Amino acid sequence: MKLLEDRIRREGLVKPGNVLKVDSFLNHQMDIALFNEMGKEFKRLFPSEKINKILTIEASGIGIACIAAQYFNVPVVFAKKSQSLNLDGEMYVTKIESFTHKRVYDVIVSAKYLGQEDHVLIIDDFLANGCAVAGLIDLVQSAGAVVEGVGIAVEKGFQEGGKLLRSKGVRVESLAIVDAMDERTGEIVFRKQ
Amino acid sequence: MKLLEDRIRREGLVKPGNVLKVDSFLNHQMDIALFNEMGKEFKRLFPSEKINKILTIEASGIGIACIAAQYFNVPVVFAKKSQSLNLDGEMYVTKIESFTHKRVYDVIVSAKYLGQEDHVLIIDDFLANGCAVAGLIDLVQSAGAVVEGVGIAVEKGFQEGGKLLRSKGVRVESLAIVDAMDERTGEIVFRKQ
Repeated sequence: MKLLEDRIRREGLVKPGNVLKVDSFLNHQMDIALFNEMGKEFKRLFPSEKINKILTIEASGIGIACIAAQYFNVPVVFAKKSQSLNLDGEMYVTKIESFTHKRVYDVIVSAKYLGQEDHVLIIDDFLANGCAVAGLIDLVQSAGAVVEGVGIAVEKGFQEGGKLLRSKGVRVESLAIVDAMDERTGEIVFRKQ
Repeated sequence: MKLLEDRIRREGLVKPGNVLKVDSFLNHQMDIALFNEMGKEFKRLFPSEKINKILTIEASGIGIACIAAQYFNVPVVFAKKSQSLNLDGEMYVTKIESFTHKRVYDVIVSAKYLGQEDHVLIIDDFLANGCAVAGLIDLVQSAGAVVEGVGIAVEKGFQEGGKLLRSKGVRVESLAIVDAMDERTGEIVFRKQ
């Protein structure tokens, strides 16, 4: 998606440790007009009328998922990273290792909001090693629901997540795929899509 | 806001410890059509053209803030509850005690996204003891920015937060104010607005 690639090129900062900072428009400050264009693009990429729910994970997936949901006319469920006093009853739980935070989280969805009738589009801001998405897929499958696809804003194509998921037959669509980035020059190379 | 009150009456669950569960539509599963009506109402309540940014806090404020931002044509910044490896440079930091999680968080906003030029509408899902909103106001004031108002989905009117903030001259508008709730009968009484 050219609009997103251009924005990453203009405002993205390449930091040591394979970190791409896009917090001026994607995951700290959020450009809602851009999110709307991304939402339209997700709908174009996943036109299936079967999709009846979007699943994301707190925190930075939520904004993108909510704006995108307007183009699908479906509710959003966000998986929670730690057990809240407000979550009780039956839950699906999985473990996710965060690339950014270097720690393992228990990730939880209430069984009330994910079930056999659900055809789920998973949305998240970043795909790197794929741990978060793999965990979300695990939650969907635990519920007996169907993963219709995975929509990602920025994929780090030089990490294994996207390749691994696609090799398992998961339909992954990333609006921008970074194939290389150079922390010295700041150069970012996108995969042709 | 009658639409929200009706929904809380229909789906809200009163739990021991003054907990009101509204996770079927507000803060776990999210009804985006309802969020749009809430966003319109926030714009009606805060018509000021000065508002150029919405500030919220992860995680459950983000969806409401992003949808509402469409009616204000402004970006959203969400305060982060713990230091991320991806946040560097100058930051504003405050401490917030969570009613739900019974713990104290460091809450952080990058100084790049909050400054003297900003007129900020704070949005969150719940207002109870007011700690989260007080922390967000502290962040805005640290940045030399102006708080134009506070928009809340559900205020627990029987806790002190709303009263405290209003007594300090902060304009707080809550779409539903619960004045009393009974965990035995499930009855919820709303303040007339």
